[in-house]
Amino acid sequence: MAVVIINPNSTASMTEAMLAQAREAAPGLAFEAWTSTEAPPAIQGAEDGAVATPPLLELVQRAADQGADGIMIGCFDDTALSEAAALASCPVIGIGQAAYHYAVMRHWRFSVVTTLAVSVPVIEQNIAAYGLGAFASRVRASEIPVLDLESDPAGSAKSVLEEARTAAAEDDIHAVILGCAGMLSVAQDVQASLRIPVVDPVWCAARWFNWHQA
Amino acid sequence: MAVVIINPNSTASMTEAMLAQAREAAPGLAFEAWTSTEAPPAIQGAEDGAVATPPLLELVQRAADQGADGIMIGCFDDTALSEAAALASCPVIGIGQAAYHYAVMRHWRFSVVTTLAVSVPVIEQNIAAYGLGAFASRVRASEIPVLDLESDPAGSAKSVLEEARTAAAEDDIHAVILGCAGMLSVAQDVQASLRIPVVDPVWCAARWFNWHQA
Amino acid sequence: MAVVIINPNSTASMTEAMLAQAREAAPGLAFEAWTSTEAPPAIQGAEDGAVATPPLLELVQRAADQGADGIMIGCFDDTALSEAAALASCPVIGIGQAAYHYAVMRHWRFSVVTTLAVSVPVIEQNIAAYGLGAFASRVRASEIPVLDLESDPAGSAKSVLEEARTAAAEDDIHAVILGCAGMLSVAQDVQASLRIPVVDPVWCAARWFNWHQA
Amino acid sequence: MAVVIINPNSTASMTEAMLAQAREAAPGLAFEAWTSTEAPPAIQGAEDGAVATPPLLELVQRAADQGADGIMIGCFDDTALSEAAALASCPVIGIGQAAYHYAVMRHWRFSVVTTLAVSVPVIEQNIAAYGLGAFASRVRASEIPVLDLESDPAGSAKSVLEEARTAAAEDDIHAVILGCAGMLSVAQDVQASLRIPVVDPVWCAARWFNWHQA
Amino acid sequence: MAVVIINPNSTASMTEAMLAQAREAAPGLAFEAWTSTEAPPAIQGAEDGAVATPPLLELVQRAADQGADGIMIGCFDDTALSEAAALASCPVIGIGQAAYHYAVMRHWRFSVVTTLAVSVPVIEQNIAAYGLGAFASRVRASEIPVLDLESDPAGSAKSVLEEARTAAAEDDIHAVILGCAGMLSVAQDVQASLRIPVVDPVWCAARWFNWHQA
Amino acid sequence: MAVVIINPNSTASMTEAMLAQAREAAPGLAFEAWTSTEAPPAIQGAEDGAVATPPLLELVQRAADQGADGIMIGCFDDTALSEAAALASCPVIGIGQAAYHYAVMRHWRFSVVTTLAVSVPVIEQNIAAYGLGAFASRVRASEIPVLDLESDPAGSAKSVLEEARTAAAEDDIHAVILGCAGMLSVAQDVQASLRIPVVDPVWCAARWFNWHQA
Repeated sequence: MAVVIINPNSTASMTEAMLAQAREAAPGLAFEAWTSTEAPPAIQGAEDGAVATPPLLELVQRAADQGADGIMIGCFDDTALSEAAALASCPVIGIGQAAYHYAVMRHWRFSVVTTLAVSVPVIEQNIAAYGLGAFASRVRASEIPVLDLESDPAGSAKSVLEEARTAAAEDDIHAVILGCAGMLSVAQDVQASLRIPVVDPVWCAARWFNWHQA
Repeated sequence: MAVVIINPNSTASMTEAMLAQAREAAPGLAFEAWTSTEAPPAIQGAEDGAVATPPLLELVQRAADQGADGIMIGCFDDTALSEAAALASCPVIGIGQAAYHYAVMRHWRFSVVTTLAVSVPVIEQNIAAYGLGAFASRVRASEIPVLDLESDPAGSAKSVLEEARTAAAEDDIHAVILGCAGMLSVAQDVQASLRIPVVDPVWCAARWFNWHQA
Repeated sequence: MAVVIINPNSTASMTEAMLAQAREAAPGLAFEAWTSTEAPPAIQGAEDGAVATPPLLELVQRAADQGADGIMIGCFDDTALSEAAALASCPVIGIGQAAYHYAVMRHWRFSVVTTLAVSVPVIEQNIAAYGLGAFASRVRASEIPVLDLESDPAGSAKSVLEEARTAAAEDDIHAVILGCAGMLSVAQDVQASLRIPVVDPVWCAARWFNWHQA
Repeated sequence: MAVVIINPNSTASMTEAMLAQAREAAPGLAFEAWTSTEAPPAIQGAEDGAVATPPLLELVQRAADQGADGIMIGCFDDTALSEAAALASCPVIGIGQAAYHYAVMRHWRFSVVTTLAVSVPVIEQNIAAYGLGAFASRVRASEIPVLDLESDPAGSAKSVLEEARTAAAEDDIHAVILGCAGMLSVAQDVQASLRIPVVDPVWCAARWFNWHQA
Repeated sequence: MAVVIINPNSTASMTEAMLAQAREAAPGLAFEAWTSTEAPPAIQGAEDGAVATPPLLELVQRAADQGADGIMIGCFDDTALSEAAALASCPVIGIGQAAYHYAVMRHWRFSVVTTLAVSVPVIEQNIAAYGLGAFASRVRASEIPVLDLESDPAGSAKSVLEEARTAAAEDDIHAVILGCAGMLSVAQDVQASLRIPVVDPVWCAARWFNWHQA
Repeated sequence: MAVVIINPNSTASMTEAMLAQAREAAPGLAFEAWTSTEAPPAIQGAEDGAVATPPLLELVQRAADQGADGIMIGCFDDTALSEAAALASCPVIGIGQAAYHYAVMRHWRFSVVTTLAVSVPVIEQNIAAYGLGAFASRVRASEIPVLDLESDPAGSAKSVLEEARTAAAEDDIHAVILGCAGMLSVAQDVQASLRIPVVDPVWCAARWFNWHQA
């Protein structure tokens, strides 16, 4: 079958962008991408995550029942990741989880640049729960709402870049992780202007399935 | 309104037993109790917990919308506790969470006696996530399936007591926490035969709402 | 008998204020309040805490011998809390301990606003020792000496509020804990001007005894 | 160029076996394998690791200078991993590191079955340093010396399997990690007789380079 | 002046034995030794420690006031160590603290063999609070009451040795720490029969003052 | 024989300065000092540390073979400390390790003032690996290159002092640790102008050998 990317929010254009990005990142693998149509248009903070959980788990169960080779949770908050993994025998990877582990395995100390401050505690708790807190310097908010990343990519890239530069200057780090699935629209611009590696979480999660033997 | 006890599994007799226990524990408070009818009959391990999460969160949302004074998640695994709490502005308490914090605030080092081994990793991860791992000695399985607690209370009490005695003898502890909502059927018998305190999680969670000012 | 509030410092007016606050918070419980007359007038930093420990433990022993239903250590530093708890079979609660656990059980990430910088390391060590460091953002000093809280409540409230506002703006938190028993004089003013909950530690500790079954 | 597998011990037959295993695991990648001829014939415990470090780092430097696409440290102790990574801009992966991260990303709680007890503290410290201690149950010694794995594969497989079965029965785990590069000789036999997944560290590390974009 | 050894229990013969041991361990330093006459005859568990704290802190204050060059808390529980240190500007060292740090600085993973099980949680909490939990394997009780160490040294040595041997065989350690001030009576016998180093806490604490420049 | 100070960098004047400092700190002990002539002139960051490791371990092995009474790793990064300790049965002490443990045993919360930002992650990882993170406030870079400490002691002292003053003002600490072997040239000047203790790591490590019984 394929690796199913599940976008836990209901914005289909983000689902499409993730699918294109995954296919580019891991051309040898088959991907399809589903949108959680009953969910909020963006997941910003713990409450949005909770509302998005039931329809997400339904899709996870469906993908598992259909024999998915793998499942990617396409939100940097790794929405309901452990619950999703318990439903499926195939690998279930969150894009945040993939980015942190990749950075840590490269021996990189990192900061995260995410969208709004309301997501910061969620991300910090995830990193701590994965045991990787010692490798993270700071989780920083660029104060760009998720949906602005699509509607105003140029303005968004500027704000994200500014925060990423501050991180590179102040945080004693080797890499910056972009903390939102929607940031792949700005990833190239940010990388072009930054002297340290920029980790795109969708790229990381897509290529992860090359590790696992399908 | 009232404190709503939500049983994340579909066994209505357990819901009724929790409601009776809560009313006895905190007679000054109003309780009602709901059963998650779409869930498995018992939650044993991470997979059952994942399946039980979507219908549970629906009930949590409904309780919050109806103006519940508080919400109690009636499973010792604290199923989807952080997601549930993000949906409601009233207090949302898990019965496991209540039991651990009560023991720790009494300066008690504790062990847990639960049902099946498949629940042990879930419980250990919860204790660690709450930051309370240093106060827990061991999580022990009595190998009693959840539903046997109702169908064979005498036999179950004997097995639970045996494991609790081993814990008291070997684990350098001050208290034993009963690690299943269904264990209130055996709590009195176990306490009667044990020299250290036995903490019933439903009792703990029900009385907790006396702390909070309704 | 009653719950005995022990003020580990020798300022009797603070004892009286705590007693009044406890009675208002938990009207169904009997409280009395004792002052540790051999102690310093305020406990600011580790040295004051050490000097205050012996007369405090004497009072704790006396309260336990007289059959107290509970003991509240009325200093936000939770002076000698574990030693006190080891002397008594009844519950022994510190007002700092109560505030942290309450916040954590409400799923609140918090900052503390205390009096002088000399108290910051003591408070940080307590939070770490209770295992709750992951839920605390920052411990902040308002640079108000303890006794100014009584002598200049208006000026103190202003300084505490200013620091609390900074915490709310910068610390990614859901609540502010007031880090001094004497701050109940300013708690209402601060809450009135802050958009997130303000946790008063004496209130928290007094109502805690409604959790425990006397 | 290629991914260079560096065997930090001087037993060339182990190097050859790792190379064959890597080529089978990741057929799309180019591998070569070097033996650290100045090192001890096996690395058992911290002292062997220290003696093996200088010639290992020399080889790492040489591989980096020659433009290796990646470097794999072929000892489960992840000998001098952080020092090696600091010398090279390409990815440097330890086979132990790869196995732990893979298990954790699959949401598996694991135990390790290694060779001699003298290696247990080294492995436990590595797991702790990577932040993954919460996901590891136990590190177990089968008391098979490293070189017996080659000279007596049948007898070794029996001992390793016995310890792996005990782990599966007692440790509340989802997977067993084989804790020695030399165990690939027994991996298939062990997996064939065990009901939970067996993770081979060389397989894990070889396929990891499919994650990274060469 | 001198380093003052304060025995927090009231058994003067233990005080004398510690003084003799300290003088032998650090012949270039001046020691005197005080007995806390108001304390219990032995400190076994948290309650004894709490009772012993007030008279201990009085002696610490007196030693500080008299210009002590250093203060040694002569109980392996490090009774009231942080409170004692806050009272004095000279170094204040606990014998448990000294033993753990010495072992850790020698790169030794250790187990502790103490007297009764009631002391185990106290010791485990101390090790955790000092940050050294990762270096400790187990805290083991020999079930010898403190005062038997003096009244029956031969029998005690046998029991302590047996537990130390079990530790050496099972705990993956480099050293055994004797977990009681009174164990210096058996230290030589135990060391003579054990293949790994035995750390005597009084020796460690006495010589520590050679580190500090008086 | 003697305690051998090994300077892991190739700047012989730093070796000489350390030797003089050690002899002054611990006049009763015999010291000699070796320079690692194959190493970089200064160790700034992880890459320098990795390059310096092989020649350092060779010298450690030589010292151990010649019967050294002790070995001091004379770089604040504690270069290859655990590998070095595994090679020798005598004590092997890093100057950073000695400084942290000394501060912690004095019950001091500390900050470190080091040279360049590139060293900050290395130092932070060491403190975390030793378990002492809870006692460290911040690791601060003065942006003085190591070799400037010798070539421009006056200017260096000014920059180090400025950063140390900021640490004393902002970090809630009891002591400042100078985070470079080369800072002994500025230690006296900094201490003279600072109100809290300044810990020199070479002094600390030299005197440590008075603890151990040669």
